[in-house]
Amino acid sequence: MSTRRLKVPFSSAFFSAASSKETYGRGAFVLHVRLQYLTQEEAQNIDVELMGPVCGFSVDQLQHVVVGGWAGGQLMELAGLSCATAIAKVFPTHHNVLVIAGPGNKYPLFLPGGTGGDGLVCARHLLLFGYQPTIHYPKRTDKDLRLRFTSTVSCVSDVPVVQNLVKQCEYMGIPFIDQLPDRLEDYNLIVDAIFGFSFKPESGRLRETEVPIASIDIPSGWDVEKGDSAGVGVKEPQLLVSLTAPKLATRSFRKEHWLGGRFVPPSLEKKYELNLPAYPVTDVVVRLPPPS
Amino acid sequence: MSTRRLKVPFSSAFFSAASSKETYGRGAFVLHVRLQYLTQEEAQNIDVELMGPVCGFSVDQLQHVVVGGWAGGQLMELAGLSCATAIAKVFPTHHNVLVIAGPGNKYPLFLPGGTGGDGLVCARHLLLFGYQPTIHYPKRTDKDLRLRFTSTVSCVSDVPVVQNLVKQCEYMGIPFIDQLPDRLEDYNLIVDAIFGFSFKPESGRLRETEVPIASIDIPSGWDVEKGDSAGVGVKEPQLLVSLTAPKLATRSFRKEHWLGGRFVPPSLEKKYELNLPAYPVTDVVVRLPPPS
Repeated sequence: MSTRRLKVPFSSAFFSAASSKETYGRGAFVLHVRLQYLTQEEAQNIDVELMGPVCGFSVDQLQHVVVGGWAGGQLMELAGLSCATAIAKVFPTHHNVLVIAGPGNKYPLFLPGGTGGDGLVCARHLLLFGYQPTIHYPKRTDKDLRLRFTSTVSCVSDVPVVQNLVKQCEYMGIPFIDQLPDRLEDYNLIVDAIFGFSFKPESGRLRETEVPIASIDIPSGWDVEKGDSAGVGVKEPQLLVSLTAPKLATRSFRKEHWLGGRFVPPSLEKKYELNLPAYPVTDVVVRLPPPS
Repeated sequence: MSTRRLKVPFSSAFFSAASSKETYGRGAFVLHVRLQYLTQEEAQNIDVELMGPVCGFSVDQLQHVVVGGWAGGQLMELAGLSCATAIAKVFPTHHNVLVIAGPGNKYPLFLPGGTGGDGLVCARHLLLFGYQPTIHYPKRTDKDLRLRFTSTVSCVSDVPVVQNLVKQCEYMGIPFIDQLPDRLEDYNLIVDAIFGFSFKPESGRLRETEVPIASIDIPSGWDVEKGDSAGVGVKEPQLLVSLTAPKLATRSFRKEHWLGGRFVPPSLEKKYELNLPAYPVTDVVVRLPPPS
């Protein structure tokens, strides 16, 4: 395995043998299992593999619809549902929510619209959970709305995935606002679905606000591996929902840290030695313990 | 409202005021609310509306990817997750599951691959819940694999949605079998994702077996409105997971009846007077009470 990785030991009680069929549901625990924290490259590779069977497709097929085995829309649906669920568990009464959906540069080569799309799906599910979300999604361009796949296979698909997510939110009656509100305090929770490199002005204001923040995957402005080392990101989200597996930058995060995106195939989990904690029975999220 | 509908009164305790923001989460109950059971036409109309904003798209765009506001893959993802969740709640130890995915003629005009696709997604989530699913998906044709939308807008999209769902299951390591096994008793649960008009031989064997059956949306062989009136369908599933809203044929179903597909926009619920029961907080399924 790569030496770039950090393996951080956690309370063993968190890691029941969910991946072991023999002991599933019997309450057995595996000792000394270490959750894997991903580097940017690893996180990207896993996403590429998730969309993996792409290699079996012709470029012509790719241009039609779904990039690989998993469609971006499918993964975003489960990821966004995870985020809304974690938010509803941690903030059951913070109903007046501002969701800031970023341009979604989820990993350099991958999925424009990614994190922003997760935020849009999250907002839709929050509404169905009884919340009143408002969406600020400023960087809507044609480019953002297309699902790209430019890693190993170098192809671009012409898919308005995120555009459709916007339509769904509008259809649900969720208001969109063009400007970040002057008074963030008018909301009692901010969902940071920005993933911030390219969105520093917003992250700056999020750095100052006292309104609790729930960040999706990586707090806005953080480096995937070094965290808020540049001092420009969201300082301290109250809740972080890591997707697929937590990233290296979040290894010392001590507030509410939840894992979502329960769609990782067992073979992929094994290959990358993710050692994901067991999700409780049918839950789409699992709370991670604080680092020891 | 149409006189074709039956409104069936239920225990009022099931209907908390989830759709009323004022009383959300306060434990207030609305009295005398009646769950709506849908005719085939109504069920079809609702699905068409869910994919509704399609009218805002050009045919060219439609041919690219997503049929409407909601992509079929998105809805199937949430529907299949609902089914797996209900199964895990009702049959927590029935891990050796045979999933029979049908050709999926979900409503005459709509979504080839629909119910069968829900079954494939269900199998994938069951695997992640610790089950060992096997899939029998006999009627795989090119035609089945495409997402059609031939209602009000008469257009056909070239989307291998279900083909991708198959790929994902294969990638998960779920075995596919070509023939229905001679001994259904080798499994301790059968998931009936057939929706059976066009699949009578299979439904016939499902009629006889003593292995418990979990049916998705409508038991195989049943008429959407008249139920098993022809006497050729699954006689008595132990579990029925209705999607979006229960259909007329299921109004007197007395075994485990759960509702899934928590994606109905409030405006649509109101328009069709669905009076859906409140889903518990973040749950993707809700158990329906037996008819009074």
